[in-house]
Amino acid sequence: MIQTPYLLFLGDAPDMLACKVAIGIRDWRPDHAVGQLRLPECRADLGLTDMTLQDGLAAGAKTLVIGVANRGGVISPAWRTLLLEALAAGYDIASGLHNLLRDDAELVAAAVHHGRMLHDVRVPTVAYPIANGIPRKGKRVLTVGTDCSVGKMYTALAMDAEMKARGLKSSFRATGQTGILITGDGVPLDAVVADFMAGAVEWLTPDNDDDHWDHIEGQGSLFHVSYSGVTLALVHGGQPDALILAHEPTRTHMRGLPHYHLPTLEALRDTALPLARVANPDCKVVGVSVNTQHLSDDEFEAYLAEVETRMGLPAVDPYRQGAARLVDALLAV
Amino acid sequence: MIQTPYLLFLGDAPDMLACKVAIGIRDWRPDHAVGQLRLPECRADLGLTDMTLQDGLAAGAKTLVIGVANRGGVISPAWRTLLLEALAAGYDIASGLHNLLRDDAELVAAAVHHGRMLHDVRVPTVAYPIANGIPRKGKRVLTVGTDCSVGKMYTALAMDAEMKARGLKSSFRATGQTGILITGDGVPLDAVVADFMAGAVEWLTPDNDDDHWDHIEGQGSLFHVSYSGVTLALVHGGQPDALILAHEPTRTHMRGLPHYHLPTLEALRDTALPLARVANPDCKVVGVSVNTQHLSDDEFEAYLAEVETRMGLPAVDPYRQGAARLVDALLAV
Repeated sequence: MIQTPYLLFLGDAPDMLACKVAIGIRDWRPDHAVGQLRLPECRADLGLTDMTLQDGLAAGAKTLVIGVANRGGVISPAWRTLLLEALAAGYDIASGLHNLLRDDAELVAAAVHHGRMLHDVRVPTVAYPIANGIPRKGKRVLTVGTDCSVGKMYTALAMDAEMKARGLKSSFRATGQTGILITGDGVPLDAVVADFMAGAVEWLTPDNDDDHWDHIEGQGSLFHVSYSGVTLALVHGGQPDALILAHEPTRTHMRGLPHYHLPTLEALRDTALPLARVANPDCKVVGVSVNTQHLSDDEFEAYLAEVETRMGLPAVDPYRQGAARLVDALLAV
Repeated sequence: MIQTPYLLFLGDAPDMLACKVAIGIRDWRPDHAVGQLRLPECRADLGLTDMTLQDGLAAGAKTLVIGVANRGGVISPAWRTLLLEALAAGYDIASGLHNLLRDDAELVAAAVHHGRMLHDVRVPTVAYPIANGIPRKGKRVLTVGTDCSVGKMYTALAMDAEMKARGLKSSFRATGQTGILITGDGVPLDAVVADFMAGAVEWLTPDNDDDHWDHIEGQGSLFHVSYSGVTLALVHGGQPDALILAHEPTRTHMRGLPHYHLPTLEALRDTALPLARVANPDCKVVGVSVNTQHLSDDEFEAYLAEVETRMGLPAVDPYRQGAARLVDALLAV
């Protein structure tokens, strides 16, 4: 197990979007985050106390979590000195990057020398089966996005928290490194071998009580050409009874793909629902989750009202408004 | 890249069905097959010249291809002596078996000792990039199926052969182990890590001449819940200019999923085309390839005529009729 609390390493993050891992931990396990550690080039700020490695140790931190993702998942040379210092100072390191700590000879040697642990939470640790498509008991909801990084994980965590607060049976099912770091288990889906993706999602969301809901963490987007295959494996492996559409209205192009426009919410609905019904003919779209962080207080309510009218579905920003109305819609299925 | 030409090893194959890989090479790359090597117990015959290892070397063979699948995909003890002799004689060995050559200590030691290569075509050997979605020069066609194993690879190979016979610029792009052994290179897509699937397909089908066509080998089906994510990675990574719909009309359920019906060709078209247009807005569905092996001579022509009328597209069984009309439709794009 990964020792808590964490010091969150933001590296040389160019923006807040790159810090999804750290933000997730800050928002959902605030007691696990003693502070943030930033390199001079860092342009992100989580609003946590800036700490050196020694500050973090004094505050009780046990593990340095690499809370920043970069394209391709590489361990940046700019980080190496800091990571080696952390191991020498007494930290374990936890990472969700594609390039593994355990494959880095220098980090491994330092960890062994100092008696520290390297946690690669992205590495699958289970021999997942090929998906069999057989219907399972219990209920499942999946959030699908118009793009990557539009609030799918946040939506699922917020709905799970709301259901638990109401005393209902509910599980958040992590499919990415942030979710796994938050909850302690899950499937690192984007690192699973292609043939076993859908089977891994079936494994993650097994038979359950009839009134239990799995909130499956979404990944990618059916419209994001880099990762759409991962998304479809979630749609088909998850057999969702309900879909939530997730959107970020100020995004001018698909993340990382400057020449691709975002689809409309209508296009997302009309693409995702027929695909979902291949695996679960009763699947319904029940709500829209909008990440309105870049809209003012005046703008966001007007925008949500417009979406709600246009889509005929509850449209909510769970960060600003909570997930109560999305959960109401889910329970009405 | 596997060195050609090959000597095709049929081992102790009990029948022709076990020799699918060797038959594919003989049929589609006859120039790559200098002959066949059979153990005394072998009951299959590809009609190629029977050769010893020394005969094969004299005929120019560089690689011994294990052209036979046996129970469980294991490296049979009956083959071991021959494989060790081949390495000593100067052959590389290529295999698509589940059990990997590289996991066999005796074969690895012999390969190292003799300076030879062991090719396990099920295992990716390239660090594929994340897909970037940038349009590429040249043309690409992808065959998508209503189900797995409906003739997608055969269709692509037949169209590639037809174009080459007409003196046109054309490449078959292999995405599975049989295709890779036939052509000597490709991407074993179902063994690629999820995040890199679409990037592997982009890597496989790079910029090319404006009048060059890549025939991308399809995998799975958008409607097969076990493998649909792999298929969508092909649709988005391949950026096809044209889609061919593939179907097997007597199949009563999805392969391996007895509780799932096959989609109609209309449903396949209406699902695949909008998804393909995310990556290539000009993509068109140009034809239907039907595997009519279970229809009689009377039945198959009537069936194809009915599909052709219904879909408004040329409908062809490339095995019975050749791929000329599919290529005509492609060139009309």
